[in-house]
Amino acid sequence: MSTVYWFGNRFVPQEEVRISPLDRGYYFGDGAYEVFRFYAGQLYETEAHLQRLWHTSAGLKLELPFAQEELAAKLEELVRRSGAAEGNVYLQITRGAAPRAHPFPRGAEPVVMAYATPVARPVAAMEAGIRAVTVEDIRWLRCDYKTLNLLPNVLAKQEALDRGADEAVLHRSGTVTECSASNLMIVRDGTVLTHPADNFILHGVTRAVVLRLARAAEIPVVERPFTLDELAGADEAFITGTTVEVTPVVSLNGQAVGSGRPGPVTRRLQTDFAATLPV
Amino acid sequence: MSTVYWFGNRFVPQEEVRISPLDRGYYFGDGAYEVFRFYAGQLYETEAHLQRLWHTSAGLKLELPFAQEELAAKLEELVRRSGAAEGNVYLQITRGAAPRAHPFPRGAEPVVMAYATPVARPVAAMEAGIRAVTVEDIRWLRCDYKTLNLLPNVLAKQEALDRGADEAVLHRSGTVTECSASNLMIVRDGTVLTHPADNFILHGVTRAVVLRLARAAEIPVVERPFTLDELAGADEAFITGTTVEVTPVVSLNGQAVGSGRPGPVTRRLQTDFAATLPV
Repeated sequence: MSTVYWFGNRFVPQEEVRISPLDRGYYFGDGAYEVFRFYAGQLYETEAHLQRLWHTSAGLKLELPFAQEELAAKLEELVRRSGAAEGNVYLQITRGAAPRAHPFPRGAEPVVMAYATPVARPVAAMEAGIRAVTVEDIRWLRCDYKTLNLLPNVLAKQEALDRGADEAVLHRSGTVTECSASNLMIVRDGTVLTHPADNFILHGVTRAVVLRLARAAEIPVVERPFTLDELAGADEAFITGTTVEVTPVVSLNGQAVGSGRPGPVTRRLQTDFAATLPV
Repeated sequence: MSTVYWFGNRFVPQEEVRISPLDRGYYFGDGAYEVFRFYAGQLYETEAHLQRLWHTSAGLKLELPFAQEELAAKLEELVRRSGAAEGNVYLQITRGAAPRAHPFPRGAEPVVMAYATPVARPVAAMEAGIRAVTVEDIRWLRCDYKTLNLLPNVLAKQEALDRGADEAVLHRSGTVTECSASNLMIVRDGTVLTHPADNFILHGVTRAVVLRLARAAEIPVVERPFTLDELAGADEAFITGTTVEVTPVVSLNGQAVGSGRPGPVTRRLQTDFAATLPV
């Protein structure tokens, strides 16, 4: 069955979605996006994703052609039409089609595209953990905007795979920021450390949920930048993200992180996170 | 008359160019591009543009599906079919269409798109000069790759327009790099200064031509980073680029640069540049 898209404010099969070669998303990456998760047919943390989309759009001076509730209703309709219980909704909005020129085009209408796909929870990775390698963070200085300019993320992820790992831990001259498509947390002496939500990282929706859960469980949390050395010497490490949820990092550059197995704080947060999911 | 595109290795009218929503160029900006100039029906500095395209593609690990001579022949054919004497050829290559996932897709074929448009030389701006404002350079750290991730350039250009100017001079904490879509040179005590061709700037084809012309004219050239203060106190400033050629910058943040009129070194280089163009 063909994937249903929301495109041109209609629900259409994928084959009917044709992007113009003059879409600024295609030649400038001039647009914003979000990936929503749904469980048991229900969108998860919708409001947090929508708030971030509005944050990105404000940064890009991209006027969104709908209200939050209207958009949420369309995404829910996509979930229904997908027929899937568990999956992702991908949504992107570009500044529209116009002859190529850097200035914002007058009168161009944003191009909105969204679709839902069935995606299972990453059970194996959450159980066994993943391997990470460190890669220099060469991205721009507004990583808090979730934009279509993802080439450095793509290159970092591919470098991780080429080096036999699953994910890239990004750092700026030794200061860890996040991963190629997820946030990173470490545990040292029982305290959860993670980079503050500033312009150097994406403000992960799952990151915020997990920090709330940690505080609720009386696990100390400190949001401050940490170094590659602190990461290498951590008792535990894990990534958070909409699709990866809470996934342990068990090796870094080929060396075990902590015991080399998912640690107790990570396990606790996985359990608490699972308890927040719609059933 | 509809613009002729080179797309899917055929020459087709624009209306027949339909981009897939799964093109990685559309959701990741995962691709390279070049803008070529032609004069009197002839491409200008073709080899330098092609070499830069190969440099970008190597950096992106994007395998180009043609040899340089083969590509040049297609671009020349586009120029012929455009019927224009003077214009630009835009060319972009993305990593192809595949379901959205960061790793390079297996078996995806690069999507190549190119077209020629008539564009006149910017005579008025070259004569009178332009106004610039300074904007923080927040781009990634591989600005020598000419990629489809151009959002920071778009935002800088728009900020310049919003502030009543024509172009943005980018700087990293006070060190000038280049402009939003051109390189910047200043003249101080008869010497031309410009940022070295490293990872912080695009290695402009026109930049290289102009530096060659300056040396041939025995104008001293120093390629080193300079500061906003050095720019503000310069005798002359000008930008170089494929479309802007050699265009004087006569004001910066509302203050005159030098005399506030195009200076003698700029004029000399404009003349020498014009002499290199096909007629």
